Amino acid sequence: FADLLPAKNGEEQTMQFLLEVVEILTNYIRKTFDRSTKVLDFHHPHQLLEGMEGFNLELSDQPESLEQILVDCRDTLKYGVRTGHPRFFNQLSTGLDIVGLAGEWLTSTANTNMFTYEIAPVFVLMEQLTLKKMREIVGWPDGEGDGIFSPGGAISNMYSVMIARYKFFPEVKTKGMAAAPRLILFTSEHSHYSIKKASAALGFGTENLILLKTDERGRVIPADLEAKVIDAKQKGFVPLFVNATAGTTVYGAFDPINEIADICEKYNIWLHVDGAWGGGLLMSRKHRHKLSGVERANSVTWNPHKMMGVPLQCSAILVRERGLLQGCNSMCAGYLFQPDKQYDVTYDTGDKAIQCGRHVDIFKFWLMWKAKGTVGFEQHIDKCLDLSAYLYNKIKNREGYEMVAPKIKAMMMESGTTMVGYQPQGEKVNFFRMVISNPAATRSDIDFLIDEIERLGNDL
Amino acid sequence: FADLLPAKNGEEQTMQFLLEVVEILTNYIRKTFDRSTKVLDFHHPHQLLEGMEGFNLELSDQPESLEQILVDCRDTLKYGVRTGHPRFFNQLSTGLDIVGLAGEWLTSTANTNMFTYEIAPVFVLMEQLTLKKMREIVGWPDGEGDGIFSPGGAISNMYSVMIARYKFFPEVKTKGMAAAPRLILFTSEHSHYSIKKASAALGFGTENLILLKTDERGRVIPADLEAKVIDAKQKGFVPLFVNATAGTTVYGAFDPINEIADICEKYNIWLHVDGAWGGGLLMSRKHRHKLSGVERANSVTWNPHKMMGVPLQCSAILVRERGLLQGCNSMCAGYLFQPDKQYDVTYDTGDKAIQCGRHVDIFKFWLMWKAKGTVGFEQHIDKCLDLSAYLYNKIKNREGYEMVAPKIKAMMMESGTTMVGYQPQGEKVNFFRMVISNPAATRSDIDFLIDEIERLGNDL
Repeated sequence: FADLLPAKNGEEQTMQFLLEVVEILTNYIRKTFDRSTKVLDFHHPHQLLEGMEGFNLELSDQPESLEQILVDCRDTLKYGVRTGHPRFFNQLSTGLDIVGLAGEWLTSTANTNMFTYEIAPVFVLMEQLTLKKMREIVGWPDGEGDGIFSPGGAISNMYSVMIARYKFFPEVKTKGMAAAPRLILFTSEHSHYSIKKASAALGFGTENLILLKTDERGRVIPADLEAKVIDAKQKGFVPLFVNATAGTTVYGAFDPINEIADICEKYNIWLHVDGAWGGGLLMSRKHRHKLSGVERANSVTWNPHKMMGVPLQCSAILVRERGLLQGCNSMCAGYLFQPDKQYDVTYDTGDKAIQCGRHVDIFKFWLMWKAKGTVGFEQHIDKCLDLSAYLYNKIKNREGYEMVAPKIKAMMMESGTTMVGYQPQGEKVNFFRMVISNPAATRSDIDFLIDEIERLGNDL
Repeated sequence: FADLLPAKNGEEQTMQFLLEVVEILTNYIRKTFDRSTKVLDFHHPHQLLEGMEGFNLELSDQPESLEQILVDCRDTLKYGVRTGHPRFFNQLSTGLDIVGLAGEWLTSTANTNMFTYEIAPVFVLMEQLTLKKMREIVGWPDGEGDGIFSPGGAISNMYSVMIARYKFFPEVKTKGMAAAPRLILFTSEHSHYSIKKASAALGFGTENLILLKTDERGRVIPADLEAKVIDAKQKGFVPLFVNATAGTTVYGAFDPINEIADICEKYNIWLHVDGAWGGGLLMSRKHRHKLSGVERANSVTWNPHKMMGVPLQCSAILVRERGLLQGCNSMCAGYLFQPDKQYDVTYDTGDKAIQCGRHVDIFKFWLMWKAKGTVGFEQHIDKCLDLSAYLYNKIKNREGYEMVAPKIKAMMMESGTTMVGYQPQGEKVNFFRMVISNPAATRSDIDFLIDEIERLGNDL
């Protein structure tokens, strides 16, 4: 134990070091929730690389003292971004849930791997129970089906395309894309770029991903989907997969799942719902109607690390038909998935994954669910949507500052008082993209943000 | 802040909760390094699902008290596996480095995302500096090239195949596999199954992955590679990619990289070195010769979370030619990678990844490197290889118990005293696969393991 640390300290010194890190972290947490603390203390890359106030990022041959390691920890936090700050609205994953954080600390202490029941018995069972609960909430009878936690929504979406291909053209697994006809994927022009990444990576080609038109609120127009499906078929291609987005990245739009499902059923196409962002609304009796029809999907991506406030990374891919994940990905590696183990090896879930080693993403989520109950997640979602309505009502009659969003953003980063993203969309110029999922944010923080944008705009 | 916890506790109660979790974790750590503690307390899935001694895994609608959450944390650890125990030899990732653990705790507290410099300035720079250092150690001039941390070696290997395809057939990105001739991949029959998973997922098909014969020590026979390359070309196919393994999963064999590189250069084939396991040897002046020729590879997978003892997940894919990762994967999403930001956007590395959100895997590794120095990693690697030689010398004259490995394994799990994996390979029957990378293991633990296997064998 003693020689685990560089300076050959004894056990007590080792534990003392860890407790000192904990003190740094708890101080950081207290400040993060204090609105008088800046969200960030911005520096350009070259400034940090030159060594701000002695903060040396370079690695060296010789060990540093534990005292210096503690200084490094403090500096790392000092020059970082407080994503849990009540005025951080920059990304879809924000906030810092203390129970979730405790769950992550335990997870790293356990430092194990999800591939087999053998070395992660409790976590494997927690994953199974939680995935089943999520499938029940999606609306699949008795929570039947399958699923796995993956390293983020992009990988979950990639899984959905792989599984769809395996369902209709299983021979691609062994013979490659040459064994299939030209396969066409469909998704909204507003959908997340991960669908495009998947089409490139998996060998479909981005030209075989057809973008669907959206209405003025950013929702897919079902008639456009049907027209494009018919067009593809007339060209002799095979429509394979439709992605409907529940909560688009920029507008937060919900595609009309039921109308899309009608078309998918009519033409025998796999329906995936990308609920990476909007899946959390399924926890709310008041708002889940926005995902009406989700139970008709063949697969669903749902990221608890977004609107539900679970620490990164926590993303689930849910599949309605059992056996496809295994069939698609299994390679039966003899050193991990021995069929002659002394326990029920159906709990060895590793061969369903495209990963081998797989980080334990379930525990923090499971622990938060225990601590909040289903009702607690519901309250959180309802609060976020209330805040969002509050913001909408507050600014609906104000316009004009979107033209200068990048300049205001730069000033906001320099002042460090709040953080919100911006982007252009189609023919629209740059505008701010406001994300509300931070459990620490209140109406006063929304007020602050609007005032701050106006204040910075006036300074231009 | 107060309402972050279910029971609306005040700030002090919240911090108190977190500190109580820390106490549970530090007690767990102390016991993990105590050899009189069991490695695991084995129970079958149905036993845990039925609720061992009140440990209820089921999720419910209503919140639990914080006291109950603490009990859940204790139970989770109680029924788990102590992967940091000095007598855990079961997986390639073992051990519990305290500085690495502190790094993980800080990482989860910072709870941010690697896609942009904007929200992870310090971590993004640490990743760049560390990847450059790793490339220098691989032997690429001035550490030039590119790379990224990915969620495990299987994904890193998948990247290598994607990049190779993009290098030679960039049109596959837009037009799909139909735009390329029949492409052939080569890897050892002893290589990790992730290469096969990648061939299936990316649309090559597993039949287009040719397995290479190995010698008696599990190393690829270069003449077999050349014969198979010529055979593929004669059939009109295009040999695209060769994977050489540095440290196979079961035998720990090192393929002869220089001889394989000669063939790859002769036939213009991408050479990837899968050093997920063996990459750590590059840190040792004494042992790095086993990877001679690695600097001739086009890409290298190297998992610090294996032999170097970094907590899971920490895997790097390194690429010799700059620009390929970006070219292969970029989709230029406007809401994240705005070209008009106020800082140097070449630091926004997210568009190189197949992920969107990306967990911060770098900090724990960076912090360990600071604490140990390059020399500390070297000492650790040298110690592991010394222990491995010790084990080899100790058992080379003993034989006979491999026939009953599964039975002994089952008894070992029940008794919980130590843990080692087993598997068959080719025509060989089940044998134990001994992994030495745990920094806490000493010669006495090796002695214990051998005695324990014999003791359990005698009880049969």
